Amino acid sequence: MTTAERHAYFMKMALKQAQIAFEIGEIPVGAVIVHNDTIISKAYNQTQLLKDPTAHAEMLCITSACHQLGSKYLTDCSLYVTLEPCPMCAGAIKWAQLKSIIWGASDAKSGYLAVSLPHIFTKKTNLISGILEPECASLMKAFFENKR
Amino acid sequence: MTTAERHAYFMKMALKQAQIAFEIGEIPVGAVIVHNDTIISKAYNQTQLLKDPTAHAEMLCITSACHQLGSKYLTDCSLYVTLEPCPMCAGAIKWAQLKSIIWGASDAKSGYLAVSLPHIFTKKTNLISGILEPECASLMKAFFENKR
Repeated sequence: MTTAERHAYFMKMALKQAQIAFEIGEIPVGAVIVHNDTIISKAYNQTQLLKDPTAHAEMLCITSACHQLGSKYLTDCSLYVTLEPCPMCAGAIKWAQLKSIIWGASDAKSGYLAVSLPHIFTKKTNLISGILEPECASLMKAFFENKR
Repeated sequence: MTTAERHAYFMKMALKQAQIAFEIGEIPVGAVIVHNDTIISKAYNQTQLLKDPTAHAEMLCITSACHQLGSKYLTDCSLYVTLEPCPMCAGAIKWAQLKSIIWGASDAKSGYLAVSLPHIFTKKTNLISGILEPECASLMKAFFENKR
């Protein structure tokens, strides 16, 4: 697999998680964490279901991956998420020292870049945006159109 | 009780949580959430114990308070925390729509103000700093001196 194919493959897995969120009425964001080319955790946004504002896909995915590896650091892991992380999730990603963050759609309202937090990650962190952006964005758009 | 006495009282309760963290070798940060002058949740930092970088005192306290009230919003609640929140926790506080955030010691390295996120909260959020600052800061100092 090329790097581009790998990114598309894992983002599709994150999209599957987002689709589950969509179907149960949650804002459709999904995430997977990859270690040695293997998915070690996957999660979708569950803020409504758990009545917990911290239950974003990325947060649940990080907690689960740490349990899986028995470590509070995920230095050799990559996080794939369908939406640009918010400041809370960006902060968690920083604490977990994830190697790479790959996201699909940008979030002009609540994303960490939108709220002027561009320097939260160190230069060692790989930041890749726009993977399967149309699919990730259209799921969000469909969700909010349904809500109107 | 005057407002100053109330702040000191609840910060002492947060300090008790921080003391528990200190005694088990965690970075000593504690928090309580207050609703109608009653503590509805309390927590201390457990990132080592849980091997989870998201397990900051504020995060655990918010999740617990939301469970307690059956709501993902804490609009009528105040968070007392011994240390200035980091960006992750500041993000969670924003999502939870807490009315007031009262902290003890500032965090010049990892606090949300230190990483240039001063505008994360809306103008409606009350921000109060420096409550029992010497006690909160000296517990942190003692912890890191022990580590050397």
